[in-house]
Amino acid sequence: MASLEKVIQEIGPMDEIAMAAARYRQDSLTKPRGSLGRLEELSIKVAGIKGKASSRFHDKVIVVMAADHGVVAEGVSLYPQEVTAQMVRNFLRGGAGINVLARQAFARVVVVDMGVATILESHPDLVSRKVARGTRNMMRGPAMSREEAIDAIEAGLEIVQQEVEKGLDIIGTGDMGIGNTTSSSAITAAMTGKPVAGVTGRGTGIGDKQLTHKVRVIEEALKVNQPDPRDGLDVLAKVGGFEIGGLVGVMIGAAVHRIPIVIDGFISTAAALIVTKMAPQLRDFLIAAHVSAEKGHRVALKHLGLKPLLDLRMRLGEGTGAALAIFIIDAAVKTLTEMATFSEAGVSEAERKAE
Amino acid sequence: MASLEKVIQEIGPMDEIAMAAARYRQDSLTKPRGSLGRLEELSIKVAGIKGKASSRFHDKVIVVMAADHGVVAEGVSLYPQEVTAQMVRNFLRGGAGINVLARQAFARVVVVDMGVATILESHPDLVSRKVARGTRNMMRGPAMSREEAIDAIEAGLEIVQQEVEKGLDIIGTGDMGIGNTTSSSAITAAMTGKPVAGVTGRGTGIGDKQLTHKVRVIEEALKVNQPDPRDGLDVLAKVGGFEIGGLVGVMIGAAVHRIPIVIDGFISTAAALIVTKMAPQLRDFLIAAHVSAEKGHRVALKHLGLKPLLDLRMRLGEGTGAALAIFIIDAAVKTLTEMATFSEAGVSEAERKAE
Repeated sequence: MASLEKVIQEIGPMDEIAMAAARYRQDSLTKPRGSLGRLEELSIKVAGIKGKASSRFHDKVIVVMAADHGVVAEGVSLYPQEVTAQMVRNFLRGGAGINVLARQAFARVVVVDMGVATILESHPDLVSRKVARGTRNMMRGPAMSREEAIDAIEAGLEIVQQEVEKGLDIIGTGDMGIGNTTSSSAITAAMTGKPVAGVTGRGTGIGDKQLTHKVRVIEEALKVNQPDPRDGLDVLAKVGGFEIGGLVGVMIGAAVHRIPIVIDGFISTAAALIVTKMAPQLRDFLIAAHVSAEKGHRVALKHLGLKPLLDLRMRLGEGTGAALAIFIIDAAVKTLTEMATFSEAGVSEAERKAE
Repeated sequence: MASLEKVIQEIGPMDEIAMAAARYRQDSLTKPRGSLGRLEELSIKVAGIKGKASSRFHDKVIVVMAADHGVVAEGVSLYPQEVTAQMVRNFLRGGAGINVLARQAFARVVVVDMGVATILESHPDLVSRKVARGTRNMMRGPAMSREEAIDAIEAGLEIVQQEVEKGLDIIGTGDMGIGNTTSSSAITAAMTGKPVAGVTGRGTGIGDKQLTHKVRVIEEALKVNQPDPRDGLDVLAKVGGFEIGGLVGVMIGAAVHRIPIVIDGFISTAAALIVTKMAPQLRDFLIAAHVSAEKGHRVALKHLGLKPLLDLRMRLGEGTGAALAIFIIDAAVKTLTEMATFSEAGVSEAERKAE
């Protein structure tokens, strides 16, 4: 933990000079000022993160972290637990939603076993960093020990380090884990103080009765564990998941390396709630890809003060929203380097009239 | 006009069987049902347009139609009229916003001179279909004759025909024309019956005083011309523009060829208001790329019953919103062909519980 705190201290502030230079460049490009809206803002934000006025992405990565959740024993999901492992195999074969959307955005997918219950056969593209074979049932006690939570975070840090060495320069966060909307709702309720019913949704598509049951399970888990909202690590350990801990580590590692972090849906945003409690300055490195159809997501984003780029009623997870957003961020950054300025193009500037 | 009506009659209905097949395929893919939200809807809509359950886009085109507007004599814009021609040259050199975003979406840009006031030097990539050197000032009388309006529409039809022969299978609509938000606000007010002030925005960025003046100019143009909202061609001729007429023709031609039409911002949507009055069945072929920051756009989209894909506060025009949307539609269509089904991937399906 001492070393983790030291790592967090390495996260620097936004580079204001680079942001001013990017703003100046945007204002000189052949378009009315501000007319590219959020694309302009994104290009300026990336400049602040990267510490240079303009850049290009050469190696886009979506990290998909998978783990199982003991709480599925309570019947909170529509799918059986073995689907987590089955979907990991689907990721490795390239047949899942995230594979299609990542290819479309020219991003690599890095699949990590953070704690799948099944023992997965080894695969050249599978990063194995299993903390345990799924968390314990949070309705009966803490999902994991504090040591396991730190282990999960350190795994995320290590994976980012490895990918940075390969060239990673923008990262999207993804998740897979049957039961992980239950964990994310518990985290969101704990961190925002909102009632559980207000942040708990249908996950993979449960009906009304099962939703009522899911809310009760989360309420009981919070009562039994009493997670401390001032202590992100405590919340992670008591009601989190190994994939969520891994994503916390990924975000810290990426921020240290000044890499833009594109958070996907509800599960990634739950990780962001935890990590920004541990490292408030990390918030500036986050770009919210989309707002999902999962009820608690909007609440969590609002709490973080992040405005999502997309609203396409997606709720698949896996990093699918992040993949689409990475394309848009890439486009935004390219306007800075590829568009002509007024003087380069010989285009007349606006006639500013006195009002 | 008789021939135009005949062309419009060739526009067929959506293919319900192809849509049902696409829906069935979406429901069998390895994800919770409906979890790709609007991507699923888009893939089904494209199936209905194309008349086959799944397809791939091989040749994406954004048609950027440029023309000048006589009404700029009234001082409604921040930029001088010569900017229209200067920006056409910028498009041809690849330095404008649309060039960057179209490259990002792997789309070709087809630049058309529909009626730029300047005599443009010929260029291998410039399609010259100049109806006249800009419209007349609509505050003093009709912007163009009915014959010129038909000429503009026929130019759009011809251009689509040429591009279809090259392979075009999805089209985005773009525009360039100093003064064309003034024309589009007039069209929107005429077609929706809303007050001019409620559908008139700042265009390239005019201040409060100039905005009040712009509203008065449009009100006067509507009073002088009395366009008939039951007659799309009358509205186009009296308060439209040559690029808007061209886009009307593009939309008719694309629908006849069963090609998805991705409408960009306010100007394209004004063209859509006109074309759906002439050919109501064309509405099913339209996909609204985004809602722009220009005030009247939201009103026009609502009138058409179209829900925009993106909301990024863009207001550049040129087809920039369409380029981003084409990427998302392409991704949506690829989920149908590239994702594995539950049985292919050996993934367990949902346990449907009796409620």
